[in-house]
Amino acid sequence: MPPVPRKRIVIVGAGFGGMAAVKALKGANADITLVDRTNHHLFQPLLYQVATAALSPADIATATRALLRYDKHTTVLMSEVESVDADRRIVRLADGPELAYDFLILATGAAYSFFGHGEWAKYAQVLKTLADALSIRERLLSAFEWAEECGDPEMIRRLLTFVVVGGGPTGVEMAGTIAELARSTLAWDFKNIDPRSARIILCEAGDRVLSAFPHRLSHYAAGALRKLGVEVQLNEAVNEIDATGLALGETCIETANIIWCAGTEARPAARWIGADAARNRGVKVEPDCSVPGRPEIFAIGDVSSFDSGSGAPLPGLAPVAKQQGAYVGRLLKARLAGRREPGPFRYKDFGTMAIIGRSHAIADFGRFTLTGFPAWLAWSLVHLMLLVDFRSRILVYVNWSWAFFTYGRGARLLTGVPRRPQWQRRAGLG
Amino acid sequence: MPPVPRKRIVIVGAGFGGMAAVKALKGANADITLVDRTNHHLFQPLLYQVATAALSPADIATATRALLRYDKHTTVLMSEVESVDADRRIVRLADGPELAYDFLILATGAAYSFFGHGEWAKYAQVLKTLADALSIRERLLSAFEWAEECGDPEMIRRLLTFVVVGGGPTGVEMAGTIAELARSTLAWDFKNIDPRSARIILCEAGDRVLSAFPHRLSHYAAGALRKLGVEVQLNEAVNEIDATGLALGETCIETANIIWCAGTEARPAARWIGADAARNRGVKVEPDCSVPGRPEIFAIGDVSSFDSGSGAPLPGLAPVAKQQGAYVGRLLKARLAGRREPGPFRYKDFGTMAIIGRSHAIADFGRFTLTGFPAWLAWSLVHLMLLVDFRSRILVYVNWSWAFFTYGRGARLLTGVPRRPQWQRRAGLG
Repeated sequence: MPPVPRKRIVIVGAGFGGMAAVKALKGANADITLVDRTNHHLFQPLLYQVATAALSPADIATATRALLRYDKHTTVLMSEVESVDADRRIVRLADGPELAYDFLILATGAAYSFFGHGEWAKYAQVLKTLADALSIRERLLSAFEWAEECGDPEMIRRLLTFVVVGGGPTGVEMAGTIAELARSTLAWDFKNIDPRSARIILCEAGDRVLSAFPHRLSHYAAGALRKLGVEVQLNEAVNEIDATGLALGETCIETANIIWCAGTEARPAARWIGADAARNRGVKVEPDCSVPGRPEIFAIGDVSSFDSGSGAPLPGLAPVAKQQGAYVGRLLKARLAGRREPGPFRYKDFGTMAIIGRSHAIADFGRFTLTGFPAWLAWSLVHLMLLVDFRSRILVYVNWSWAFFTYGRGARLLTGVPRRPQWQRRAGLG
Repeated sequence: MPPVPRKRIVIVGAGFGGMAAVKALKGANADITLVDRTNHHLFQPLLYQVATAALSPADIATATRALLRYDKHTTVLMSEVESVDADRRIVRLADGPELAYDFLILATGAAYSFFGHGEWAKYAQVLKTLADALSIRERLLSAFEWAEECGDPEMIRRLLTFVVVGGGPTGVEMAGTIAELARSTLAWDFKNIDPRSARIILCEAGDRVLSAFPHRLSHYAAGALRKLGVEVQLNEAVNEIDATGLALGETCIETANIIWCAGTEARPAARWIGADAARNRGVKVEPDCSVPGRPEIFAIGDVSSFDSGSGAPLPGLAPVAKQQGAYVGRLLKARLAGRREPGPFRYKDFGTMAIIGRSHAIADFGRFTLTGFPAWLAWSLVHLMLLVDFRSRILVYVNWSWAFFTYGRGARLLTGVPRRPQWQRRAGLG
C-alpha cells in the first residue's frame, strides 16, 4: 500500500493564533509552511513596555525559526503575502515563490485604523510591531532631550505634552507608563526642564476607560490613572490631527507626541480570498473557523470575525487567537488522520486583566473581580508565565526587579539620530 | 570677598574620554556641559556582540544623563556640534543654542574611513554606533532568511557569503562571531539551506591579522579563526566594492554582505577649530593634551593625535581615551582651584586583548602573553568589570551564560521589514 501523500498546510502569521496552530499540528501528516513578515514571534501584551523603555525588544520577542527548530515538517519563511489565488489554492509571496496549499490558515492579525483619516498616521504613532514600539520610544525620549536643549517655554510645553488616544487596555497602559516615566524615571535627570511638569492626556470618545470591563473596574482604573498624574478626558472625539497637535471636540491641544491606541481593523486577508468581511474587515467565519464556501481556508484571531452567539463577534484578544489556533490545528490533524473532528469552536473565557502603571491593575474573572495589588500580582505572574521561553523570563524578571526598586528604565536608548519635527526646526528652535 | 565666578567647561562626546573627564571634574569650581549626538554612553568593545545578535543594545549602553543624574553642575545635551568659534570661545549646536566656554574638551572619537572611496559606504557597513550594529544585525539575519526563501543556488551562495574587511580586533571579532552564528546558532534552523555552508572571509591587506600584537599571537588568532571556519585572506587589498560584491586583488567575490572594519579617521574636530591635523585627521596635541596655541582647548581619545615619543601617535584604544580624559579633568580641576597642575600626560599600558569566537582569545601584557582559555577568561572578566553599571553586568551575564550553554542568540530580531538589495529584486528572486 503506497503511503498517504502528505498534505500541504500554509499558515500566514506567526502571532498567538498561528503559533498555536503549528503547535497543535505537531505530528500531523502534513508539511507546514509558516509565513510571517517579521522573523519573530512577539509577545504583544508587553509591547507597551518596549515603547516606554522598560524592556528591550529581545525580552519579548524570539526568532520564530528558533522556536520551531525541532519541528522537522515545518518551514518558516520571512516574507509578505501579496495575494492568494483561492481557486488554484496558491499563496503568492512578495518577491518570493508561490506556495501551493491544501489547507490555508489566515492568522494575520489586526492593524490600527484611523477611522478614514489615513493622513493622521503621519503625526500619530500606533503600537503594533516592534518597529512601532521603538519609534514611540524614540519619540518619547527625544521630546525630553529637545526640551532640555531648546530654552523656549512654549516649545517646551508642546514637547512635554503627551496625548494617548483611545481608552482601551493599550491606551491605559501607555498613558500610565508615560506618566511614570515623566514623574519618576526621568524626574531628576534634567537641569533646564522639570519632567514632572509634563502633561499626559488620555482621550476616550466613550464615557469611560476600559469599557470592556465592569463599570466598577473602569472607575478604579480612571482613579488610578489620575493618581499617576494622567488627565483622563472622556466623551470627546478627536476631530483633527496635524503637525501642531490635535483637536479634541472644540479644544485644541498643542503637542508633538500623539500615540494612537484607538480603533483597530483586521488586516486585508478577506480581500485576498474575496470573502465576506465584517465591519472591522475581519473574515466572517463558520463555527469551525473556516471561511464560508471555502472549507479548506480558516481564519483565526484578530483577522477573523467569529459570531459568539451573543450578537457581537469574539473580542480581539490573545486567548481567543490562541484557542482558535489550537482548535483549527486539532481539527486539521484529525481530518488528515481520518479521525472524528471536534465540534464547533467554543471560546473559554478565563478572565481579562489590564495594568495601570507599575502597581495598579484590574482583573475581571467573571464571577469575581480584583483591583490593586492582588490584581497586579495576578497580572505579573500570568504574563511572566506566558512568555514563550525561559530566557525571556529571566531577562524580564531582572528588568522588572530593577525597574521596581529603582524606578529606572534600562532601555532608555535612542539608537539613531532622531529627526526633529518640521515645526520645531522652522521655528528656529534655540 | 565675592565668590570666584564659576568657569564654563564644554565637553563634546560622551564616550570613554568625555565620561572620564566629567568624572575627574567632579567637585571642580565649574559648570560643565556635556554634548553628545546620542543619548547614551556606549560600551564600544562589546558592540560587535550587538551586531551579531548576542546582546541587546540596552545591555551595553546606558542613558548618559542617568549616569550623571547626581552631578548637579553637569548639564547633558543631546545635540550635534555644527561649528566652534575658537576666537569667541563659542560652540554652535545644530538647531540649538550657542554654548560659551572657558575650556573646551573635544572627545568626539573616530569614524571609519574608506580610504577616499566614500561611495563604498553604500555597500559596506561599518560598526561604530548602535545604529550601525543594528544595521549589521539586520543584514546578517536577513541574508539567511532570504536565502531560505529564494531557491536559486547562485543567489543563495551570494547571500551566504560574508566578507569582513580589516584584520584588526573588530574585524577578527566580527568574522569569528559570524562564523559561530552560521556554524552553530543557526545551523539547524533552516529547511531549504544549510547555514553551515556559509563562507566567511576575513580580508587583511597586511601580512597578518591583529598586527598590533606580537607575531606569535597573530599566528594563534589566524589559526583559531580558521578552526572556526573563517577564510583568512592576507596580503590583498580591496580594489573595488559595488552592489554585487568586492574585488580583492584580482579576485572577485560575489557577496551581499560586506562589513568594513578597516581604516578609521578622527571626526572633524580639527577643522572646527582650525587646528593642525595628523594623517588620520586627529588634532595634534601638546604633552598636556591641549591644542597648540589654544591652551583652553583639549583633544582626547581617538580624535587626538598624541605623540607618544616613539614616533607613532598613541593608538585609538579605550584605555588611552579614559586616561587622557581623567588627566585633563584633573588638570583643569587643579587649575581652577589654583593648585599645582600635573606634569605631562603619560599613557600607562596595562596590556591589550582580543577575542576570537566564544572560546579563543589572546592577551598581550608586555612582559607575558596569554592565549586560549586563560586569555578568554581574562577577557571576559575584564569586560564584565568594565561595564558601567551593575544592571548591564547582570544582563550580559545572563545572555552570555545562555549563549555559552546553548549556542543560542537572544537578540535574533529584525525589528523592521528590511529592504532587499536591488540586485536581488531585479533578478526576480524566487
